[in-house]
Amino acid sequence: MVLMSINASDPDILSDFILPPNITAPDGNFFTFIGMRVVVGSKPLPNLKVTKATKAEFSALDGQSVSYAVLQFPSGGVNPPHTHPRSAELLFLVQGSLEVGVVDTTGNLYAQTLQKGDMFVFPKGLVHYQYNSNAQYPAMALSSFGSASAGTVSVPTTLFTSGISDEVLAKSSKTDVATIQKLKAGLAPPKP
Amino acid sequence: MVLMSINASDPDILSDFILPPNITAPDGNFFTFIGMRVVVGSKPLPNLKVTKATKAEFSALDGQSVSYAVLQFPSGGVNPPHTHPRSAELLFLVQGSLEVGVVDTTGNLYAQTLQKGDMFVFPKGLVHYQYNSNAQYPAMALSSFGSASAGTVSVPTTLFTSGISDEVLAKSSKTDVATIQKLKAGLAPPKP
Amino acid sequence: MVLMSINASDPDILSDFILPPNITAPDGNFFTFIGMRVVVGSKPLPNLKVTKATKAEFSALDGQSVSYAVLQFPSGGVNPPHTHPRSAELLFLVQGSLEVGVVDTTGNLYAQTLQKGDMFVFPKGLVHYQYNSNAQYPAMALSSFGSASAGTVSVPTTLFTSGISDEVLAKSSKTDVATIQKLKAGLAPPKP
Amino acid sequence: MVLMSINASDPDILSDFILPPNITAPDGNFFTFIGMRVVVGSKPLPNLKVTKATKAEFSALDGQSVSYAVLQFPSGGVNPPHTHPRSAELLFLVQGSLEVGVVDTTGNLYAQTLQKGDMFVFPKGLVHYQYNSNAQYPAMALSSFGSASAGTVSVPTTLFTSGISDEVLAKSSKTDVATIQKLKAGLAPPKP
Amino acid sequence: MVLMSINASDPDILSDFILPPNITAPDGNFFTFIGMRVVVGSKPLPNLKVTKATKAEFSALDGQSVSYAVLQFPSGGVNPPHTHPRSAELLFLVQGSLEVGVVDTTGNLYAQTLQKGDMFVFPKGLVHYQYNSNAQYPAMALSSFGSASAGTVSVPTTLFTSGISDEVLAKSSKTDVATIQKLKAGLAPPKP
Amino acid sequence: MVLMSINASDPDILSDFILPPNITAPDGNFFTFIGMRVVVGSKPLPNLKVTKATKAEFSALDGQSVSYAVLQFPSGGVNPPHTHPRSAELLFLVQGSLEVGVVDTTGNLYAQTLQKGDMFVFPKGLVHYQYNSNAQYPAMALSSFGSASAGTVSVPTTLFTSGISDEVLAKSSKTDVATIQKLKAGLAPPKP
Repeated sequence: MVLMSINASDPDILSDFILPPNITAPDGNFFTFIGMRVVVGSKPLPNLKVTKATKAEFSALDGQSVSYAVLQFPSGGVNPPHTHPRSAELLFLVQGSLEVGVVDTTGNLYAQTLQKGDMFVFPKGLVHYQYNSNAQYPAMALSSFGSASAGTVSVPTTLFTSGISDEVLAKSSKTDVATIQKLKAGLAPPKP
Repeated sequence: MVLMSINASDPDILSDFILPPNITAPDGNFFTFIGMRVVVGSKPLPNLKVTKATKAEFSALDGQSVSYAVLQFPSGGVNPPHTHPRSAELLFLVQGSLEVGVVDTTGNLYAQTLQKGDMFVFPKGLVHYQYNSNAQYPAMALSSFGSASAGTVSVPTTLFTSGISDEVLAKSSKTDVATIQKLKAGLAPPKP
Repeated sequence: MVLMSINASDPDILSDFILPPNITAPDGNFFTFIGMRVVVGSKPLPNLKVTKATKAEFSALDGQSVSYAVLQFPSGGVNPPHTHPRSAELLFLVQGSLEVGVVDTTGNLYAQTLQKGDMFVFPKGLVHYQYNSNAQYPAMALSSFGSASAGTVSVPTTLFTSGISDEVLAKSSKTDVATIQKLKAGLAPPKP
Repeated sequence: MVLMSINASDPDILSDFILPPNITAPDGNFFTFIGMRVVVGSKPLPNLKVTKATKAEFSALDGQSVSYAVLQFPSGGVNPPHTHPRSAELLFLVQGSLEVGVVDTTGNLYAQTLQKGDMFVFPKGLVHYQYNSNAQYPAMALSSFGSASAGTVSVPTTLFTSGISDEVLAKSSKTDVATIQKLKAGLAPPKP
Repeated sequence: MVLMSINASDPDILSDFILPPNITAPDGNFFTFIGMRVVVGSKPLPNLKVTKATKAEFSALDGQSVSYAVLQFPSGGVNPPHTHPRSAELLFLVQGSLEVGVVDTTGNLYAQTLQKGDMFVFPKGLVHYQYNSNAQYPAMALSSFGSASAGTVSVPTTLFTSGISDEVLAKSSKTDVATIQKLKAGLAPPKP
Repeated sequence: MVLMSINASDPDILSDFILPPNITAPDGNFFTFIGMRVVVGSKPLPNLKVTKATKAEFSALDGQSVSYAVLQFPSGGVNPPHTHPRSAELLFLVQGSLEVGVVDTTGNLYAQTLQKGDMFVFPKGLVHYQYNSNAQYPAMALSSFGSASAGTVSVPTTLFTSGISDEVLAKSSKTDVATIQKLKAGLAPPKP
């Protein structure tokens, strides 16, 4: 469920910054986010981990049209195809190597293998992925967005775990219901 | 391949309208689009057909932040899950009935069965689909967009026909390469 | 009187959609508008009828930059010259024929006679009208707007029924006060 | 006829300013407009005169979202009802007194008699007028706009001199054709 | 301290205008600002005086993307270098003469001596100043902005009275701490 | 001198991306920027170095509203007070420690000492600085911007090396001409 935002506009605020209702006397801490300390210098992780600094985690970003995510890839880790509905993404690879790709609205794939220090831009609203194909080393990337709340639509989970009917998915993918059910079973989180 | 647009901005033009380079003395025809005449009153079609009136087909829309698509569904026809990177969609069902659904960025599916005369809004950048589950009757919908060039990312074809590697897709979908190859084969157009 | 809107911005919201204060758990109904059912297939009407689906009637449109109006014209019916302060209009004629025209800021009239299936774009903020000159048949058009709240300024009623003084109107129209008073009497709704 | 603007966007340029193709080495003169010198301290005029400093007259305004107009009213002079399609107007009365009014989209008239030094804001896209009802003294106002090219739709001339048919106008104004023809004759400029 | 604005967006409101919470039945006074009456025709002042009509002083400007400031310069008066974070400025010199200058992001100074009736545009976000170098006469200018709340960053006071450390300022200005302390002492308001 | 940009708008392009005139068949390289490879893992530098990835260096950013800069601080290095006219800045400290501060339009300083892994947001258009006060260790930060061309106004050099007269600067800073001349001499680059 998505909560209403009292300030729904990314661009062009009419004040220097926007204070949340509970803050009336901001100091330097209001403009500081320490939630990434744990990420910098963390040990290699067994699974992909995405740590965000958006308006949700860091309220001073409200109205400032910018946010970050740190992506940590284990060896062999993949960030499945996804889109950001409200921003482009500019990825900066700070550790390891990474295969990336983006598909435009006419179906062309633009792929690249990045080395440490490279940047890659994923244009607004297009499907893209990242994959650390290296068998030995982890990779880490820093991604910035031109919105304080870019949003993420993860494609496989959106298709296969949100409850869209087998029939619609089978027809859409030109496959049979059994294949759809297999994909759903693979992606569904275990029931608690 | 995507051609460069000399006018890259949707909102807030500085003239009443924008003339393409080849038109210097516009008349009423410049503001008129007749490409939908064939759609209105056409016979039932064997497959889904989407007819667009965007900046590409109707140049007077440049700078006016609005466009249309007409969707014609045969019985059993589905418009596979897709997103529009640059606009919301407001669908108006003018014939038949239609199952529709949209998934938000937190994975919730909002589905509905529409009857003739109903509207449904698919918010900006979210994955959505339409399905005419009726066994007998066709359906027709008119969709409007708040951009002259909303763009469409069709999810299954973007994933399975753009050339993303089997490995990335199998890992992303938590399935095996054989399943990915089966999906690719089903969606790929026959080689010429 | 115009009520304050807590969310005053059309473009670029920071969430998937905006919930009104009284809705916390939206389902498919939130995204559905059934207010047009009565329009589709209605009998011919004696007078022009405009039925709207804007933010005011359909709250899910808030922040999505799109809305609709259905225009039903009896034989001989006219939609008087008007402007939309906050959007262009893209009209789709779905029944009958229609004379339309728009005047740009340099005073040029662009007119057209539309047939069923034609579209016509009225650029942002310009004065335009529609007229069903057919002596026998009604007409119906669907118009979309690139704003959830485009607004309408009906020119004759704005001039002659809002209370602007006879003197200002006579001087502005380079006519006499008697003519102005005649126009006012014709347009004023009968006193209750 | 409206010429195409190569830069069609008012907000958010990507450079400090925009140079027209013929200027490569701007100096202070590029940012200076001297076209208002004749207005300041001019003698009283027999008719309303509007002198503009918009993108058309002052190219450095391109991309800066601001422009001016100076309005000179003789005794009894009126600026007929009009709208600006692309901006609000903030009027500053620097000489004399002035009756002003604006009508909102629900038909309410907000009128005021301004004295020297007063400001009045005409919101975006709404019909408004100014009238110097003083029998003896001229008035002068300076108006600013939040666009480099706000545009002006003069309502009476748009209705009665652009070529809209008598029939449409008579029906729209709920009057007879003779009255429309009288209005057209009064407003039409003499044939050359 | 900066208070939160409930409506944080300058462009594109969804209503004709925005009413503050305490006003439910606006009349002509709501759209009128009389705070400049004292400025028009005031006697020469001993110091620079800037009188503003922004959203803060004139609430009807909210959402209308336009505001004014009147600048009164005594002989020899200077408006120190400053920027406006949220708008360009279009200055209209209505009395006297004025030296003005603006520096772009590559360090070029564009300077001009204006005479009565001249306009000068200071592009968005750039440092600019005004100086009445005339030994005898005062000057008065009217400046308009394409935002209802352009904001002002006065450069010398921002640097030298906000509390930035001597060390940072000395290193930044490539000078010694003594010079910084002298500048701070000159600009600091006397302690109460 | 600033060259004209043919595409002057940051937000809301009408295509997936914008190709420069010389590229007609983009591949993955078009979306890749390798200019930061030299920065990652470079040796400590004697002076502050700012390396940018904006539209100027990386043309694929055009229309995507995002860019980066890498800031390398030697021990004792300072990034002098400056503003970005077209974007907020979100700084991520990836090495060392850093003193930062920003001053709002009412003159309040918000300062902080960041440690590795911290973020700090400098709101749009406000004056800010960074200082590595550590006597031993260098620092490195990655800053992202919500514009492809944020621009930078360095305050001391803008004031003291652009050619603004001693008189204007002395009056603006409430100091004597000798102090201004001393500051100018310190900041001016040696004549070639």
